[in-house]
Amino acid sequence: MGDEGRVREIRTDTYSYVFGTYGEPVATVRPGEIVDIYTEDAFESRVQDVDDLPSQVLTMPFLNPQTGPIVVEGARKGDTLAVEILEIEPTRDFVVSAHIPNFGGLTGTSATALLTPSLPEQVYKYPLRDGHVELPRGIRLPYRPFVGTIATAPELEAIGALTPGPFGGNMDVPDTCPGNIVRLPVNVDGAWFFTGDAHASQGDGELCGVACEMTARVRVRFGVESGATIAWPRIESPTEIMTVGSARPMEDAARIAWVELIRWMQADYGFEELEAYQLLTHAGRMRVGNMVDPQYSLVAKIDKSLLGS
Amino acid sequence: MGDEGRVREIRTDTYSYVFGTYGEPVATVRPGEIVDIYTEDAFESRVQDVDDLPSQVLTMPFLNPQTGPIVVEGARKGDTLAVEILEIEPTRDFVVSAHIPNFGGLTGTSATALLTPSLPEQVYKYPLRDGHVELPRGIRLPYRPFVGTIATAPELEAIGALTPGPFGGNMDVPDTCPGNIVRLPVNVDGAWFFTGDAHASQGDGELCGVACEMTARVRVRFGVESGATIAWPRIESPTEIMTVGSARPMEDAARIAWVELIRWMQADYGFEELEAYQLLTHAGRMRVGNMVDPQYSLVAKIDKSLLGS
Amino acid sequence: MGDEGRVREIRTDTYSYVFGTYGEPVATVRPGEIVDIYTEDAFESRVQDVDDLPSQVLTMPFLNPQTGPIVVEGARKGDTLAVEILEIEPTRDFVVSAHIPNFGGLTGTSATALLTPSLPEQVYKYPLRDGHVELPRGIRLPYRPFVGTIATAPELEAIGALTPGPFGGNMDVPDTCPGNIVRLPVNVDGAWFFTGDAHASQGDGELCGVACEMTARVRVRFGVESGATIAWPRIESPTEIMTVGSARPMEDAARIAWVELIRWMQADYGFEELEAYQLLTHAGRMRVGNMVDPQYSLVAKIDKSLLGS
Amino acid sequence: MGDEGRVREIRTDTYSYVFGTYGEPVATVRPGEIVDIYTEDAFESRVQDVDDLPSQVLTMPFLNPQTGPIVVEGARKGDTLAVEILEIEPTRDFVVSAHIPNFGGLTGTSATALLTPSLPEQVYKYPLRDGHVELPRGIRLPYRPFVGTIATAPELEAIGALTPGPFGGNMDVPDTCPGNIVRLPVNVDGAWFFTGDAHASQGDGELCGVACEMTARVRVRFGVESGATIAWPRIESPTEIMTVGSARPMEDAARIAWVELIRWMQADYGFEELEAYQLLTHAGRMRVGNMVDPQYSLVAKIDKSLLGS
Repeated sequence: MGDEGRVREIRTDTYSYVFGTYGEPVATVRPGEIVDIYTEDAFESRVQDVDDLPSQVLTMPFLNPQTGPIVVEGARKGDTLAVEILEIEPTRDFVVSAHIPNFGGLTGTSATALLTPSLPEQVYKYPLRDGHVELPRGIRLPYRPFVGTIATAPELEAIGALTPGPFGGNMDVPDTCPGNIVRLPVNVDGAWFFTGDAHASQGDGELCGVACEMTARVRVRFGVESGATIAWPRIESPTEIMTVGSARPMEDAARIAWVELIRWMQADYGFEELEAYQLLTHAGRMRVGNMVDPQYSLVAKIDKSLLGS
Repeated sequence: MGDEGRVREIRTDTYSYVFGTYGEPVATVRPGEIVDIYTEDAFESRVQDVDDLPSQVLTMPFLNPQTGPIVVEGARKGDTLAVEILEIEPTRDFVVSAHIPNFGGLTGTSATALLTPSLPEQVYKYPLRDGHVELPRGIRLPYRPFVGTIATAPELEAIGALTPGPFGGNMDVPDTCPGNIVRLPVNVDGAWFFTGDAHASQGDGELCGVACEMTARVRVRFGVESGATIAWPRIESPTEIMTVGSARPMEDAARIAWVELIRWMQADYGFEELEAYQLLTHAGRMRVGNMVDPQYSLVAKIDKSLLGS
Repeated sequence: MGDEGRVREIRTDTYSYVFGTYGEPVATVRPGEIVDIYTEDAFESRVQDVDDLPSQVLTMPFLNPQTGPIVVEGARKGDTLAVEILEIEPTRDFVVSAHIPNFGGLTGTSATALLTPSLPEQVYKYPLRDGHVELPRGIRLPYRPFVGTIATAPELEAIGALTPGPFGGNMDVPDTCPGNIVRLPVNVDGAWFFTGDAHASQGDGELCGVACEMTARVRVRFGVESGATIAWPRIESPTEIMTVGSARPMEDAARIAWVELIRWMQADYGFEELEAYQLLTHAGRMRVGNMVDPQYSLVAKIDKSLLGS
Repeated sequence: MGDEGRVREIRTDTYSYVFGTYGEPVATVRPGEIVDIYTEDAFESRVQDVDDLPSQVLTMPFLNPQTGPIVVEGARKGDTLAVEILEIEPTRDFVVSAHIPNFGGLTGTSATALLTPSLPEQVYKYPLRDGHVELPRGIRLPYRPFVGTIATAPELEAIGALTPGPFGGNMDVPDTCPGNIVRLPVNVDGAWFFTGDAHASQGDGELCGVACEMTARVRVRFGVESGATIAWPRIESPTEIMTVGSARPMEDAARIAWVELIRWMQADYGFEELEAYQLLTHAGRMRVGNMVDPQYSLVAKIDKSLLGS
């Protein structure tokens, strides 16, 4: 990374609130190219202080602004886009979080519609310094950044930026982090890539629907892989292979992720279907990414060291 | 309806496979206007015989072709579009149905992803005559037509034509039938209306994912209602008020429909919230519209005669 | 029914709060015998007035008292118990209903655990006369009685009386009403039958979790059918065959009911599996019985007139 | 552990297939007492080789045999039973696993009833030696034992030994392992404790429904804690506090676990409710224990080091 002067920066003033092909590309990149993508936070920086209530400063459906679309040269429908996440650095020294009325995992929502009163709205602002988010009570959360949202465009649809799906999207899984490669289906020529919603830290499930939200510089390297088509996002770390399923109810998200992981084990590691199923019952790992977005996202994982030799 | 010469016809050769505002309108109508909309079947007439297997003749994601967008003059964001369904007539003398691999209520699907083998693919073609669909064994299903799909456009999204949502869409609820008024939220100026997927008959749940599919002429009268914004589709028959919720799991679809019905009873019939909740526990009715689409659609109903005086 | 002097009465002072074989039978009946079973209401008559708050007068887990176990002579494990419901008459002139904190379809519950405040607790008492339940606003609900709870014992388990399952139980489906035959699996010799929780009227879903609760005299005729084992409750009316599935999420309850209905159509009406599936997609009906109990209960139905000849 | 001669052994020949109070206790223990409990495997040792197909050698509902009930002296209804797991040692040198028809996470099941064919039945037998389970391909799984099933009795119910719930039961969460304290609600005097179903290793979700099943010696120390009543199982490791929720759909299991964890943080660590909710959105961890049993079990966790000072 020493040669930062040669890394192209991608910035925009006009964010995208959907994943689709109906807007204007903000940049075009080549396979192999490393770029620094500057991303807004999920609130488009409208929540700067504890008095900036989301219910007042945000306007539906203009939520979770994405930097994109970014066209990737040479990516053809049916290919796989491989996005290597190299760095995620905050571009400010604080994060914000919030309890938003009728949003989150332990309240009625627009999907789980109830008559019960909503919880109090509340905004939190935490310093981000020395590699930690500093909460009250002396609680320090290690800085473990990732992009909550990373997507290609669906072929025909334009899907709201709060939603995850087969195309990636607002998965809110902490595994889309530096050091990992995120593979996404290419549904249209050029892939039409989006990212945003960087989190400095997040618990499993993103329980109240909001993490440690920050603006960021996200350094990635783009790659295009031809020949094999994937159905759902795949993530590779130095030690694990992982797949992400997004659906409701949560067991369907889990099932999608497991089946996609079995398909990967069959295609690249020589497993029979039942054999992979059997190994996962003993050694599969699963992360609850989000249980708050329009679809829940779960990650199925297996350690590469268990994939045999 | 004697004066059919004065009813404008809306036909198209270029169908829409999403609900959104990114395509070209096929027509513009005025409030109060009656039009005959010609609709394709869900297979775009590519399944004409039992040898036309959907897995071979259909191309994802170009499914469930919609006639639209139709712009409604004077409809403003925040208004309600009231579509009075006057007639639905078949434009051919048969219907088709099918069991499609990994699609339907009693099989693994792309959402409920499993390792089990799929059921056999099979196509059915039934005569439609004398007010009946004629099945084998001498079974005659009364002709009870409705449009499976009826929608306005979301504000920013373009949603695939197989999906129902707050904007209506592919709800597959038999209550969107002649004699009823379907109210939909207007999310953008002009409403951008779509319809298609007429069914000659359908059971609750549309169990295998395919009903008695037909091409049709759909006569509707458009109205625009200002002043009150609705959150989810509302349907009114001569005897009932109804709301449609679309979500997964199915209980969330039910909850949405009930809450919207309570909001309607509060707004237009003078009920307190708890009072409406109490009446519905005793006298509410619920229909399972579909349990096969990307979101399930359930209809909550209450008889007008029980809404007091 | 003219010879009422010869109908045996079954009453008890010691109710059962579980379905199982660990208590003492309150009666033994013979196949073909008609009996009048006296049942308590779901609150064991502790809610007599609007000041009798359930949260104060009820004691968990002593809820939904059942009259039973009633041993049916000659019923063997693997048989089917056929209970013909002949009459349900109230034994008092009012019903009660209630909104109970953290219970019901539109609130957080012990299963859908949330942080949101509960809705207000409120009790309702309605006159029952002249074939109607009389609500405020001049709303009159027709008297359409059924037993909310009707069960055989599981083989080993003792299941709380609020819960429905393969053994029947607290299904809260209005189809267990006079004129219909309810068939239940016999899991142990003697069947060990229970019933209670009569409702004077109920909407689909029993939305707030409480219907028009009453004490009742329930006249039934018991029958034992050997030779075929059923997996889930089956109900037969003069015009329909029906099955009840109980599970969460709601789509699983629906799937169970549909599959059991297909099994019935195969066994007794000569259908092939796919043929039955195909007919149900066009003509199946579905009722949401309850969406409030520990398992949701849905009823799948098909009109006998559509089962061919 | 050097003084093993003084540890009492609890063995039985008559296992319990339900959690309840209707059977005969196999032992009575005192608070503070350390005992060695010998447990059967989930198949009651009937699957010893790859030809022993579960569908042939098992008899419903006599599944998952439990050692118990064990009465704990001095435990009163409303107390909490604290079970410190000290050791789990295999009592044979192999484990078994299996794919069982219509059972598991990626197939239709009795609850998710479908028409699709079942997957092939297959039994696996793996050596257990040198601290590893040895799978084909040279895959070695570290020996990480835990008891899949650990329960107190419900007050009135007798619940099948395959089912988890508020009382613990067949949770299949790897956190009920040596080094941890499992706290369970005491619902009846004496607590009536059960355990069994030891696993040598298990992946998250226990994907196919069967882990590395083994017979075992389980050394525990019993404790009784008065004064505070817990609603769901709580687990404490040297570094984390954890709660287990069991329900369907999976999001309800998650909600239960999170709410119980918040209650714990409020009661013992001085958090306000919203404050705990906020911390968990940033730092909570969640494990998918099982996604195959009658209720799914999820574990919510927070690191003790983040609970402030």
